[in-house]
Amino acid sequence: MIIVLKPGSTPAEIDHVIERIRELGLKPHVSAGEHRTIIGVIGDENKLQAQPLQAIPGVEQVIPIMKPFKLASREFTKKDTIVNVGKVKIGGGHLAMIAGPCAIESLAVLDEIAGPVKKAGANILRGGAFKPRTSPYSFQGLGEEGLKILRDIGQKHDMPVVTEVMDPRQIPLVEKYADMFQIGARNMQNFDLLKEIGQTMKPVLMKRGMSATVKDLLMSAEYVLAEGNPNVVLCERGVRSFEDSTRNMLDMSAVPNVKGQSHLPIIVDPSHATGRPDLIPPMALASIAAGADGVHIEVHSCPEKALSDGPQALLPGRYASLMEQIRKLADLMGKTY
Amino acid sequence: MIIVLKPGSTPAEIDHVIERIRELGLKPHVSAGEHRTIIGVIGDENKLQAQPLQAIPGVEQVIPIMKPFKLASREFTKKDTIVNVGKVKIGGGHLAMIAGPCAIESLAVLDEIAGPVKKAGANILRGGAFKPRTSPYSFQGLGEEGLKILRDIGQKHDMPVVTEVMDPRQIPLVEKYADMFQIGARNMQNFDLLKEIGQTMKPVLMKRGMSATVKDLLMSAEYVLAEGNPNVVLCERGVRSFEDSTRNMLDMSAVPNVKGQSHLPIIVDPSHATGRPDLIPPMALASIAAGADGVHIEVHSCPEKALSDGPQALLPGRYASLMEQIRKLADLMGKTY
Amino acid sequence: MIIVLKPGSTPAEIDHVIERIRELGLKPHVSAGEHRTIIGVIGDENKLQAQPLQAIPGVEQVIPIMKPFKLASREFTKKDTIVNVGKVKIGGGHLAMIAGPCAIESLAVLDEIAGPVKKAGANILRGGAFKPRTSPYSFQGLGEEGLKILRDIGQKHDMPVVTEVMDPRQIPLVEKYADMFQIGARNMQNFDLLKEIGQTMKPVLMKRGMSATVKDLLMSAEYVLAEGNPNVVLCERGVRSFEDSTRNMLDMSAVPNVKGQSHLPIIVDPSHATGRPDLIPPMALASIAAGADGVHIEVHSCPEKALSDGPQALLPGRYASLMEQIRKLADLMGKTY
Amino acid sequence: MIIVLKPGSTPAEIDHVIERIRELGLKPHVSAGEHRTIIGVIGDENKLQAQPLQAIPGVEQVIPIMKPFKLASREFTKKDTIVNVGKVKIGGGHLAMIAGPCAIESLAVLDEIAGPVKKAGANILRGGAFKPRTSPYSFQGLGEEGLKILRDIGQKHDMPVVTEVMDPRQIPLVEKYADMFQIGARNMQNFDLLKEIGQTMKPVLMKRGMSATVKDLLMSAEYVLAEGNPNVVLCERGVRSFEDSTRNMLDMSAVPNVKGQSHLPIIVDPSHATGRPDLIPPMALASIAAGADGVHIEVHSCPEKALSDGPQALLPGRYASLMEQIRKLADLMGKTY
Repeated sequence: MIIVLKPGSTPAEIDHVIERIRELGLKPHVSAGEHRTIIGVIGDENKLQAQPLQAIPGVEQVIPIMKPFKLASREFTKKDTIVNVGKVKIGGGHLAMIAGPCAIESLAVLDEIAGPVKKAGANILRGGAFKPRTSPYSFQGLGEEGLKILRDIGQKHDMPVVTEVMDPRQIPLVEKYADMFQIGARNMQNFDLLKEIGQTMKPVLMKRGMSATVKDLLMSAEYVLAEGNPNVVLCERGVRSFEDSTRNMLDMSAVPNVKGQSHLPIIVDPSHATGRPDLIPPMALASIAAGADGVHIEVHSCPEKALSDGPQALLPGRYASLMEQIRKLADLMGKTY
Repeated sequence: MIIVLKPGSTPAEIDHVIERIRELGLKPHVSAGEHRTIIGVIGDENKLQAQPLQAIPGVEQVIPIMKPFKLASREFTKKDTIVNVGKVKIGGGHLAMIAGPCAIESLAVLDEIAGPVKKAGANILRGGAFKPRTSPYSFQGLGEEGLKILRDIGQKHDMPVVTEVMDPRQIPLVEKYADMFQIGARNMQNFDLLKEIGQTMKPVLMKRGMSATVKDLLMSAEYVLAEGNPNVVLCERGVRSFEDSTRNMLDMSAVPNVKGQSHLPIIVDPSHATGRPDLIPPMALASIAAGADGVHIEVHSCPEKALSDGPQALLPGRYASLMEQIRKLADLMGKTY
Repeated sequence: MIIVLKPGSTPAEIDHVIERIRELGLKPHVSAGEHRTIIGVIGDENKLQAQPLQAIPGVEQVIPIMKPFKLASREFTKKDTIVNVGKVKIGGGHLAMIAGPCAIESLAVLDEIAGPVKKAGANILRGGAFKPRTSPYSFQGLGEEGLKILRDIGQKHDMPVVTEVMDPRQIPLVEKYADMFQIGARNMQNFDLLKEIGQTMKPVLMKRGMSATVKDLLMSAEYVLAEGNPNVVLCERGVRSFEDSTRNMLDMSAVPNVKGQSHLPIIVDPSHATGRPDLIPPMALASIAAGADGVHIEVHSCPEKALSDGPQALLPGRYASLMEQIRKLADLMGKTY
Repeated sequence: MIIVLKPGSTPAEIDHVIERIRELGLKPHVSAGEHRTIIGVIGDENKLQAQPLQAIPGVEQVIPIMKPFKLASREFTKKDTIVNVGKVKIGGGHLAMIAGPCAIESLAVLDEIAGPVKKAGANILRGGAFKPRTSPYSFQGLGEEGLKILRDIGQKHDMPVVTEVMDPRQIPLVEKYADMFQIGARNMQNFDLLKEIGQTMKPVLMKRGMSATVKDLLMSAEYVLAEGNPNVVLCERGVRSFEDSTRNMLDMSAVPNVKGQSHLPIIVDPSHATGRPDLIPPMALASIAAGADGVHIEVHSCPEKALSDGPQALLPGRYASLMEQIRKLADLMGKTY
């Protein structure tokens, strides 16, 4: 950590900062420059991060040098983590091909979607039973009935299933039916939820919050890892921006950015990122080319009758033709699924 | 609602849209223009909002005309809502002067802060017992012990108290000790939490999410109102932006923007919005001039030893001098507290 | 265009709007709904766009239906435009592989870069002679001397050259030496510059402004096209965002988004978008997979001694290995260069 | 400047960095920590800023300690700068009350606006003769004819006048007619324009770019100051954001943020910032309360017939009632105009 003092800070102020650092058992290195004095601090930076050094009179800036996450960092684990969801592997060259409707509506509709996506190459089935909706007047999901449908259709088509959990109290229920938890973008910093999911060993698909930096995303993963659950798969799904012709802005560079800093797998959700069926296929291909460990795509057999997010769903036929292109690209990139 | 069809949409496509609208018991008005056909829909727009009309072939754009919130709207209630927190009124000319430390640390520290802020004019005491922290390694709050301290110090100084609730399971506990719930920015779209707070009658201070639009904020208020709790006070606390010299960007225009669309009170939190003690006083004054129903300011007797967000806290003396200026400005604006 | 009136607008207000529309020779279609009256306007929407209808009492919202650009639109020209830069084609399946240093520093340095990039597959050489620098104290470019070096080295290696023009007065000079103008992100809305470049017939590489929407970018292209110059190539180079670990946020979906709305070619500049050499190769690959008509990459033989933007430049060897991967991906996508 | 080396950087890499620093005549201070080595550099940081140290192998981060602007900094000039525009003073307790239409349309219309605003308390008249318009098909301004009208009406009502200059070639012409140049948001980084305006001594109103940070704004002021023109007045006019109910997001905290770092005056333009007449008055009041040195407000006698930006203009009567409130607030704040 580096502490930059204001120009004109007094010797008493400088001494006070030094004393505070020593109280914590750390060693200050003072460099008195022409314009400013700078203090480098050697030792366990985490001790200092909890300290509001910025509030000490005379301090201009406090600059952390180390990353605030540990277990999630590439320095902690050099090798790519591979997360197992049922028989499906994610990371280390293995792609997750997650597909399904936004919300589970009925056994018949889910079945009608699951068959074709499985055939097209999807290896994990998704569907929401608890839906976070901006409006209290929108469809809120089928709850446990939806979870049962999801499990049954997943078993029928031999696909593990992933579904969102919004509230810590839903964890035991969702754990019973699903192979993987999804933490939605709106809950990426619901820290109680993160901690309690961290206490299970079930894989988690953690979506990036709409205004989360890459560092924030890795800090949320750290919450889960710190509780003992190492099975975290991250998901870029777009962030809020001024561009109004897409639902969100897909931050494609987050893929290699995360991979440089962390050993955790990261996939991309072009459906929520763009909100437009015409943009999903090129963004799915770009994700694979960027090195993503999979894609998460919404598919619906009748988007115009979907109870949630219909306009951004692909038809099963369009999904199948996209998957043919992805297959060739995955081969070129040396990835399997 | 207006449905714009793509140039070159076929008569069959147009008929299909019309039929879908009629199925819902609504009346379509078709205008065939030179370049595009447009269909206006008359009737209860909410029926349509649940329908993914955008996904129908031939549809280019679906444009809602009505606001998606009802109970929160100015059209629903013309008069400014006044929310009572203990003996303190918020809204309709009454200002909430909320002050206190970020986190409750001990009885002694809170007492040392509460006395001076009460004397300076604060009318509600704040302090966090459950803290949402980006890092799992940061101080997470004292929990119930903190709540007891907050209540005791509030009673000692005759101030109602407000504190954050992060998880629906904490509601009964927090309800017992606090006079007002706070919903933090990270939980503005934690819909289960909103619904269950909506089932109490205790006032709620609802902070705007870091990437929430003004409409999103009002939709979250609608969740609480729809469950029966009318006592919602909104809070602008800055949004994420590219400006890196402040913690967030304070969207000051949200104050009159909300007041034009809604009858609910709105206050401003310049502490979290700016993260800088030098910017808090001018932003607090600007908030009152903009028509805010109060300000929420972090105060700490020793910011450099605060366990959370010390660098953005004002010292009690600085808070007192600010309150003198606010007093004169409130008089000029015809507001009381 | 659709004009939505406020709830409770008076018949006199409605008549006033109708009269104003008729004055312009257009036909209003009035739909009186339960809550609001809506007026659809049929005819040349451009006549109306210049009119501040929003300011008429009683008007709540004015919603344009047509796109504000014409010559740049896919509706105007169905087929992909192919822009010729010397013997290089851009668009319609032909990729622009633009490479070179940020700034032209000397004949020797440029030569040392141009040789390897040409060998690796680059087909256009770039280099700045006039540099827009945030600080007045930074290197501002070599001016005409730089242009001469660029032309000479381009001829030596048989590559057409592209360079930035910042001021309309530089157009004749730059036109003499370069095969393609570059309009930088900071000048995307320098309308005098756009108009005067529009009066030449030389190809233009137009970079997206840091806070420009896709529509803004297409409107700036419209400025050039409207003056008679059809040779516009667009360039996504990242926009400003809250993410602080990359220089800008690469909006990859702008590629298919532009291609859906416009016939103009669009390439991607991952160097400025990310500002990080570790992210440039995966983003270049993703760009090609997303359908971009080329990539623009900064290469420097000694980044640590570069006079501008050294930290984001690739070494020639890294560029060559990236180009091998791009070659295979381009083959898969059916693109040539 | 602080240079942080990567964990595991070799002694040879560290030596190479040290050597490079010494080559520049500067002194490196090396601190070898447990995890990382840090090098503090003492001396003229500007020498280093031009050097791409980040690109040196083994370097993880380069952290500048000093601000990149000098002449604009509060450290350079402690006292508030007062800029004189005709007989009007701006800064140091003197408020600029700039008002007028977006574009100059005719002598009669400008006269009809100037009279009432002068009477209401405006002290500088504005109006655009050269208009930067997103669309090439929108009204582009009257040019020199507009400048004459502006000067004549300004003289008639005894008000100095300000108008935008978009192109360096317009400087001599605008200089002849106007008392103050305006640099628009889109030209804040048109560096040739900045330099040439810096070579005049005429006051400049410099608007913040739509994606400019506060530091970027001060760097653009530095361009003008560095050429010898000290008469720069900054203007906050909103930045691009995801909030779609206002034209831009007014960054009110930029006012005290600039004042802390710089001696230059800063005013606020709530018209362009919000784009909504209902939000302009509260934002104008908030600006004065935040410490702004004035406000810039668009006024039009018939907004619905205005040739540019009509919907965001106030009627003269609304402007007058706002000015009454501002008068009282200015008195309270100890400001005069």
